[in-house]
Amino acid sequence: MRFISETSADGVREQLFTLGEIPGVLWTPDGAVGPRPLVVMGHGGGQHKKAPGVSVRARRFAVECGFAVVAVDVPAHGDRPKVDEYDRIVAENQARVEAGEELAPLIAEFQALVARQTVPEWRGVVDAVQDLDHVGRRDVGYWGVSLGCGLGVPFVAAEPRVRAAVLGLGGVLASADFAPLVTVPVEFLVQWDDERVPREQGLALFDALGSVEKSLHANPGLHGEIPAFEIDSAVRFFARHLR
Amino acid sequence: MRFISETSADGVREQLFTLGEIPGVLWTPDGAVGPRPLVVMGHGGGQHKKAPGVSVRARRFAVECGFAVVAVDVPAHGDRPKVDEYDRIVAENQARVEAGEELAPLIAEFQALVARQTVPEWRGVVDAVQDLDHVGRRDVGYWGVSLGCGLGVPFVAAEPRVRAAVLGLGGVLASADFAPLVTVPVEFLVQWDDERVPREQGLALFDALGSVEKSLHANPGLHGEIPAFEIDSAVRFFARHLR
Repeated sequence: MRFISETSADGVREQLFTLGEIPGVLWTPDGAVGPRPLVVMGHGGGQHKKAPGVSVRARRFAVECGFAVVAVDVPAHGDRPKVDEYDRIVAENQARVEAGEELAPLIAEFQALVARQTVPEWRGVVDAVQDLDHVGRRDVGYWGVSLGCGLGVPFVAAEPRVRAAVLGLGGVLASADFAPLVTVPVEFLVQWDDERVPREQGLALFDALGSVEKSLHANPGLHGEIPAFEIDSAVRFFARHLR
Repeated sequence: MRFISETSADGVREQLFTLGEIPGVLWTPDGAVGPRPLVVMGHGGGQHKKAPGVSVRARRFAVECGFAVVAVDVPAHGDRPKVDEYDRIVAENQARVEAGEELAPLIAEFQALVARQTVPEWRGVVDAVQDLDHVGRRDVGYWGVSLGCGLGVPFVAAEPRVRAAVLGLGGVLASADFAPLVTVPVEFLVQWDDERVPREQGLALFDALGSVEKSLHANPGLHGEIPAFEIDSAVRFFARHLR
């Protein structure tokens, strides 16, 4: 793990790093000493580790809960190189959709392929970050919607250190195999007028989660229009579950 | 409005009253002086104005938000006399169900009948309670699930002083006419495994509400098993919307 830069603003220390080939960012409260819960955040498709939807929440988890927060670029996103295999699949999928195939199953298949790479990468990121004195080994949470949900469900299912997760804007197609293996408390976001994930697909993913405690929060609006008060709710959800 | 008794416990003053024929209870913070938001609460079927699901929440709204909270017995509930017409309809409905009719439309019809009485009653209760110095004329909220939703939707639709409502455990059948007329922010509770209100009926009522801001909170469990953290959420919802 190699640190590249460090800045501080509004009470939050932001450290950019690489772990092998993986570029990442770690947010902690200014002056943090000793172990604390860690939230892993997964970004959306076409976005990156410091996209506003990620960093705004990360800073609130750090300031309001005192947590450490880490996000890394997904392969072929942010500062990572293109992946020829992914480009080939995306082009193939485009041709298949133009030939009349449904898009949703193709996206699901693609996310499952990416998850086979990101699950071990993210587990390695947790290992490395928890070795730092100002992070340490406490409960881990996961936050991710859209692509961050498609990649997050298999991560949460596979990683026993994760004790609570905020997921959403994802459909059951991409996550049917792993959803029943998620057993930690989940807050699950659905956008009622989502133009990318059919409402029924989102509700079916919530239904398929294996968790005893899971709470569906659905709000009117398009895929990208999660209301601001859901950030407050995520802060309280993690504060309640991570120690 | 005639006050019958007054007690105080855990920082909350509880005043029992009658308004004409209607028995009610008013909770306010101990020592409250001057105007404050008012939450009207509707109880469930077979319950009454001081049922635990009502009074536990009422005390939290009073203590944590400083609000006044009022609840009254629905006709033929609590301290109110039986209503021969209602008994006749219930008996008729039972016979119709035994003869093969569906229960849900009959309950819906019955709730609509009761609402024609409770909407004007509750509006009169708001008038009377807001005349008190320690309540005054500020924003009004409404909280009610199950029967409290069936009676609450037409009340919220009719009463412009209501600025925010927590509703739920109700289906669209009972509320189809009035749901589109509800335009204030709503937090809407669905129990995912509700044995009395089919899931699809609950989701359809959420869908039918006319509000721009409405948030569906669905949790696993039966009709009576709303998780405790939804009380926290209702406290924050009213604190955000009532001034």
